[in-house]
Amino acid sequence: MIKAAIIGATGYSGAVLAGILSSHNDVEIVSLTSKSYAGKKFSDIYKNFKGILDVELEEQDVLKISKKADVIFLALPHGIASGEINKEILSNTKVIDLGADFRLKEKDVYETWYKTQHLSADLLDNAVYGLCEWEREKIKNASLVANPGCYATASILTVAPLLKEGVIDANDIIIDAKSGVSGAGRGLDLGTHYCECSESIKAYKVASHRHTPEIEQELSFISNKNTLINFTPHLIPMKRGILVSAYLKPLFNISLDEIKNIYKKYYQNEHFIRFLSGTDVPETRWTIGSNFCDINVFKDDRTGRIIAFGAIDNLVKGASGQAVQNMNIMFNIDEKKSLENVAVFP
Amino acid sequence: MIKAAIIGATGYSGAVLAGILSSHNDVEIVSLTSKSYAGKKFSDIYKNFKGILDVELEEQDVLKISKKADVIFLALPHGIASGEINKEILSNTKVIDLGADFRLKEKDVYETWYKTQHLSADLLDNAVYGLCEWEREKIKNASLVANPGCYATASILTVAPLLKEGVIDANDIIIDAKSGVSGAGRGLDLGTHYCECSESIKAYKVASHRHTPEIEQELSFISNKNTLINFTPHLIPMKRGILVSAYLKPLFNISLDEIKNIYKKYYQNEHFIRFLSGTDVPETRWTIGSNFCDINVFKDDRTGRIIAFGAIDNLVKGASGQAVQNMNIMFNIDEKKSLENVAVFP
Amino acid sequence: MIKAAIIGATGYSGAVLAGILSSHNDVEIVSLTSKSYAGKKFSDIYKNFKGILDVELEEQDVLKISKKADVIFLALPHGIASGEINKEILSNTKVIDLGADFRLKEKDVYETWYKTQHLSADLLDNAVYGLCEWEREKIKNASLVANPGCYATASILTVAPLLKEGVIDANDIIIDAKSGVSGAGRGLDLGTHYCECSESIKAYKVASHRHTPEIEQELSFISNKNTLINFTPHLIPMKRGILVSAYLKPLFNISLDEIKNIYKKYYQNEHFIRFLSGTDVPETRWTIGSNFCDINVFKDDRTGRIIAFGAIDNLVKGASGQAVQNMNIMFNIDEKKSLENVAVFP
Amino acid sequence: MIKAAIIGATGYSGAVLAGILSSHNDVEIVSLTSKSYAGKKFSDIYKNFKGILDVELEEQDVLKISKKADVIFLALPHGIASGEINKEILSNTKVIDLGADFRLKEKDVYETWYKTQHLSADLLDNAVYGLCEWEREKIKNASLVANPGCYATASILTVAPLLKEGVIDANDIIIDAKSGVSGAGRGLDLGTHYCECSESIKAYKVASHRHTPEIEQELSFISNKNTLINFTPHLIPMKRGILVSAYLKPLFNISLDEIKNIYKKYYQNEHFIRFLSGTDVPETRWTIGSNFCDINVFKDDRTGRIIAFGAIDNLVKGASGQAVQNMNIMFNIDEKKSLENVAVFP
Repeated sequence: MIKAAIIGATGYSGAVLAGILSSHNDVEIVSLTSKSYAGKKFSDIYKNFKGILDVELEEQDVLKISKKADVIFLALPHGIASGEINKEILSNTKVIDLGADFRLKEKDVYETWYKTQHLSADLLDNAVYGLCEWEREKIKNASLVANPGCYATASILTVAPLLKEGVIDANDIIIDAKSGVSGAGRGLDLGTHYCECSESIKAYKVASHRHTPEIEQELSFISNKNTLINFTPHLIPMKRGILVSAYLKPLFNISLDEIKNIYKKYYQNEHFIRFLSGTDVPETRWTIGSNFCDINVFKDDRTGRIIAFGAIDNLVKGASGQAVQNMNIMFNIDEKKSLENVAVFP
Repeated sequence: MIKAAIIGATGYSGAVLAGILSSHNDVEIVSLTSKSYAGKKFSDIYKNFKGILDVELEEQDVLKISKKADVIFLALPHGIASGEINKEILSNTKVIDLGADFRLKEKDVYETWYKTQHLSADLLDNAVYGLCEWEREKIKNASLVANPGCYATASILTVAPLLKEGVIDANDIIIDAKSGVSGAGRGLDLGTHYCECSESIKAYKVASHRHTPEIEQELSFISNKNTLINFTPHLIPMKRGILVSAYLKPLFNISLDEIKNIYKKYYQNEHFIRFLSGTDVPETRWTIGSNFCDINVFKDDRTGRIIAFGAIDNLVKGASGQAVQNMNIMFNIDEKKSLENVAVFP
Repeated sequence: MIKAAIIGATGYSGAVLAGILSSHNDVEIVSLTSKSYAGKKFSDIYKNFKGILDVELEEQDVLKISKKADVIFLALPHGIASGEINKEILSNTKVIDLGADFRLKEKDVYETWYKTQHLSADLLDNAVYGLCEWEREKIKNASLVANPGCYATASILTVAPLLKEGVIDANDIIIDAKSGVSGAGRGLDLGTHYCECSESIKAYKVASHRHTPEIEQELSFISNKNTLINFTPHLIPMKRGILVSAYLKPLFNISLDEIKNIYKKYYQNEHFIRFLSGTDVPETRWTIGSNFCDINVFKDDRTGRIIAFGAIDNLVKGASGQAVQNMNIMFNIDEKKSLENVAVFP
Repeated sequence: MIKAAIIGATGYSGAVLAGILSSHNDVEIVSLTSKSYAGKKFSDIYKNFKGILDVELEEQDVLKISKKADVIFLALPHGIASGEINKEILSNTKVIDLGADFRLKEKDVYETWYKTQHLSADLLDNAVYGLCEWEREKIKNASLVANPGCYATASILTVAPLLKEGVIDANDIIIDAKSGVSGAGRGLDLGTHYCECSESIKAYKVASHRHTPEIEQELSFISNKNTLINFTPHLIPMKRGILVSAYLKPLFNISLDEIKNIYKKYYQNEHFIRFLSGTDVPETRWTIGSNFCDINVFKDDRTGRIIAFGAIDNLVKGASGQAVQNMNIMFNIDEKKSLENVAVFP
């Protein structure tokens, strides 16, 4: 049994993670921590867990927990995780960070975009970017995995094959992304008040969202080309789900069939990536509650542009599901374990 | 392995049932049928099943299927199931009907409320009302189970303990029920058009909803008292969930503690019924995607009335989850099998 | 021109009120105040007002404003309004309080239910309960109007005719009420976070909601009978709207036609009350953005109980619309002025 | 008084139009027609109109109605309007077509994109494209106005100033558009069933939506440059609202201030276009129920691209509001008449 702990279990990704781990046959949850709710029962905070996971939330003592856990999941706000982790902890246990602190390779880039100091830059070299389908080999031996951002997961999976194959212009990539409200977390904010965000749509953080450098870094790495993207997130009145609409410029004449074959080449053996048939469009509803990423691609013959779509559940493939997928890879067990459920529909 | 078939797999309860069965370790799905979509792949109709259940939908030949299936689930509109089932089929296989045709014991009552002829009234005596927590012993040996209606499940579970213990007036029961839109099914209707039912609430079928006699019949049976209820359903702008608010009149002076102890007496060992603590109110969100029924009870000291609430997912405990729970009981396996998942939240 | 001021213009009812007043031909808005946003433009807080009402929000100096305003609307939390108003202010201007402080006639009842001290109990005798259709004559000459609560408005309008005519038992009234989220105001709270209240329903403040004594007081006054109600509010995932489902016990045998005639007697000349035809059920969607209250009544012949429904927009007829209706009555102008618009649908 | 008729009053845009016209001081509604509901009362179909517009729906005899109406609004499906209008009707009355039949100047382009024959191509030369802010002078004298499509209105208003000023590449325009569900109309379709489209997002009609040639035609006309766009519509789980996100490529180095000044040059005197301040993003919620179009523009300094956003209510500025604005212009009355209300929020 893998002994697992969640640091910050009462945010949305922490809670979803607790659900996946609690139904994982090879996992025993040894600790759930919470800064705000320590001492309370987890199932008093998330009442769906009543009768399933009634354990008490603990204080956030990561070093102590690292001694009894085989793997620690960090589900903390950015800027906090980097202060909680150090080499001693990493020598005791494996760490999967669902936050942003270990995703960017360059300390400077991190500090510019996140406007805060990185508290353990010495660990950045240890960190493996945990985009399972593209970094599986490195993840296998990692002790510190930086679980990708929700937008980054959907964006990179949607765009990477064409970029890696040299089909598209690496400096003319437009990603118009749409996310459900849970992406903003459980904290209180006027923007996530029901009356303020239901029945409306807006863009936010235009040309300044922090997943931008993360997407560029990984796309550049995968394709070995310096990549520059326009990334624009939008808030959608739904709880979960991310849809990415990517507008891509082919560098040469290429047919839709050839384009589709490239996706199939990379993804046909990937269980969690469903490359759709014909003109089926990815819809977030077919992924909610599951670890799937649905992708399809179109070509606008009038303008020549390629349009690719990717849909995920931001809290599963975009966060906690991928974190468990990473754990499964790191512990050399079936990558699909506890992640095989169908999306909840309707 | 239990060989299971679903007749009418492309309605909402059929599809949810397919999901639960496909993750059931002891079940092999041998047939999914559909009148409208026979010949198509199930995962082309419900695209969340892509990569999980890509089987082809068959014609609806129940007799033929009864020869290869250990259990057949009927997920058909009322008035249809009674024409599909006969003694020969029942001698071949067990049947669990998710529709209304075998719930009411009296042919006349059925025909009055459903305004259609019953096509196999001779089977009514064979049918067991599949409200698991109250009819478990009978279900064990049943060959034909009438799976309870969604409203009926929530209403009976919420009211039965007090009625059985003789605490409340059996002729002064008011049930104000609220349901998500999936209760109306997948068929097209102006009332379920997004623009017509979102951001609004209404009552419907006032004093005439067909679950009324079903609730009365079972409450009368459980309590051995002739029971008469006011039942008023309301349509709520959400996909899933039923909340029942029951207003009950005590027959004598009784404290809230004594009332709560009655619920505990009946439900403390029932895995799928969570009697909540203190003044926690049942909320549908804590049950969505799960087989739980959350219940709590209050007393209004000013008026003396007891107010009890029950919340379920109408498609799980109110339909397909309970159907699988019935199957587990009928096949003498762990009642919780494939039903242990936590509700999907947020 | 009537010079009007709104104290607390940046809550939801204040903002809706600003909209109605700004399109009122006989009104000039002389001041909008805000504790949190003084100094900012109103249209920076509510951006729908850009180009329509770009005035600056002022400090909340009620005495000063009373010298320039013909009418002051108070849209403040309960417990605050009673500290802002005094006899001097009332000698300068008319006051319409959208909050709860002047609704209950008895200081003790107020302090018991609101758990705070009343700061101007000497004014309670001056206050007129502003339920326009039932208190029109008193409102005409009032200097201080207590605008009814949203739930109270819908509940009283729905039940009063039958109670006044002695048809129903005054001690066996069950009101199951359902409200959209805006009823909880614009303040931040986990319960109104989009992800926490969308796609779910719950009851709240069971047997303890503060509109209970308000409804009882007014129904007792109208009917001249001591009235005791069970009142249970529920939170519905929609922005606006209240639906009241009232379960009433007739004291004698009475036909549905006779019952309907009683409603017609009281409401047929009331512009803002639409008594529906036949079995049409009130739905909140037909009232949103308008000052209408839609009512209909049913009889359950099996149980003998009468079931009455009333639907309003909680922010219009349940708050700001009724406040303007009160102003129109107080200033002896057409009661419908600035309130004649159709509900916004879809 | 202008005598107005609506042909096809029971679709969503017909109903919204009826609401705007019924509160218009200079308009008398002389006829509402409906193919499906002729003989019924309009307020039985749209119950929000009870007490406001209880007229009977007539048969759809356009010639007959043209003799008594000063203006006829056509709110019909495409392909139908072109068969209902002819020169005789146009000699009797002015016509404003809310559908697509007279928007495209070239019969061939129409027939290619709409896959149906145009039944009155001889009238195409008469038709004026009714985008008020850009075609006001021509509208003044028009007898036949083609009211722009909802997506087209938002897209053109958002992009036109920069294109007309020669700032951006006319062949590198990407428009990612998002619409509420009412854009799909009131007809029944699985895609607009509440359970199928709530809590989800998808793109549709990728590279094939019929507003594409309409946007290109008008942008080409305004800018005098052949314009080619990528247009991708998305369905958003909300009732009303369109947000357009436009990705534009500057042809030369230009600062954000210069860009903003171009918008101000064209729009500062336009009442219904609100060019927002600073980094305020257009949100559909601030426009719902109003005739406003909110616009703002950003520059991504890293990629050089310009990102412009436009938000409207698809049923008001995108349909019925703009139709009334056109009528006001055609009849030489204040363009804002009956269109001055604030957006309904929350």
